[in-house]
Amino acid sequence: MKKIVISALALALLGAAPAYAQSADAKHVEVLPSGTSPAFMGPAKLFTGSVVVEPMFAATEHTHATGALVVFTPGARTAWHTHPGGQLLVVTQGTGWIQEDGQAKKVMKAGDTVWIPPGVKHWHGATDKNGMSHIAISYMVGGKNVNWMELVSDEQFLK
Amino acid sequence: MKKIVISALALALLGAAPAYAQSADAKHVEVLPSGTSPAFMGPAKLFTGSVVVEPMFAATEHTHATGALVVFTPGARTAWHTHPGGQLLVVTQGTGWIQEDGQAKKVMKAGDTVWIPPGVKHWHGATDKNGMSHIAISYMVGGKNVNWMELVSDEQFLK
Repeated sequence: MKKIVISALALALLGAAPAYAQSADAKHVEVLPSGTSPAFMGPAKLFTGSVVVEPMFAATEHTHATGALVVFTPGARTAWHTHPGGQLLVVTQGTGWIQEDGQAKKVMKAGDTVWIPPGVKHWHGATDKNGMSHIAISYMVGGKNVNWMELVSDEQFLK
Repeated sequence: MKKIVISALALALLGAAPAYAQSADAKHVEVLPSGTSPAFMGPAKLFTGSVVVEPMFAATEHTHATGALVVFTPGARTAWHTHPGGQLLVVTQGTGWIQEDGQAKKVMKAGDTVWIPPGVKHWHGATDKNGMSHIAISYMVGGKNVNWMELVSDEQFLK
């Protein structure tokens, strides 16, 4: 059962959730009201702490990327991962950290935009004391927009 | 002088403003702090009422689109226009209207996502009584992401 749940969540993370407005063959302006796609909690294999993922838009022949609002509570963060097509973050609330493997972590705040180039191993999340929310725009390459790796330890997170 | 100013604004609208973090050859995670790119008022040839445009990110070989936060005061709206590659709107504040030519206008609210297919003539903005802000992600085709047309009359706006 757990496996099935995680598969469904992984599918949603990959933009395969069905409840999106923008279909590739859309001919008219489409308004997708907030709340159309159910949110889900980030699974413990991919995230540390409490993380809510709200799917926003699907990858189409036009967008080339999925979009999701991701809400991190203080101390919460992704696992280490890469994006085959890169990822754009728009921080909408609070203060967070992002770290590229082998570099010092960086602070990101509401209003900031972040670019993660293709193939760069990194993690992102809240700080230890503040929550952080961002819109994540994840570019697809060959039907995939993320490669998940190991969790970020407390030592790595607080360093 | 006015022509030069409008040209500069049009360039910025087209994503050609220089102060963006994500260059196509970026190899590392880049945080672009809010306020890096100067905002500008939407020019009167392209917008009705007071509109502030804050450039967020540039079109690269990865993003294929420009990003900007656009803030509309009550009654403010774009001119009629099309997007050769389509446009995605994420409403971040307030309540606005969007209308496709020949269709009834639709309401969009904070949290909603809107897809405008390539080539569809439309306008968007605040309502007559509420302000509205959205992130606009405008896909490039052949170096262009918008074709501007005539202003939206008060009669069209209020219909």
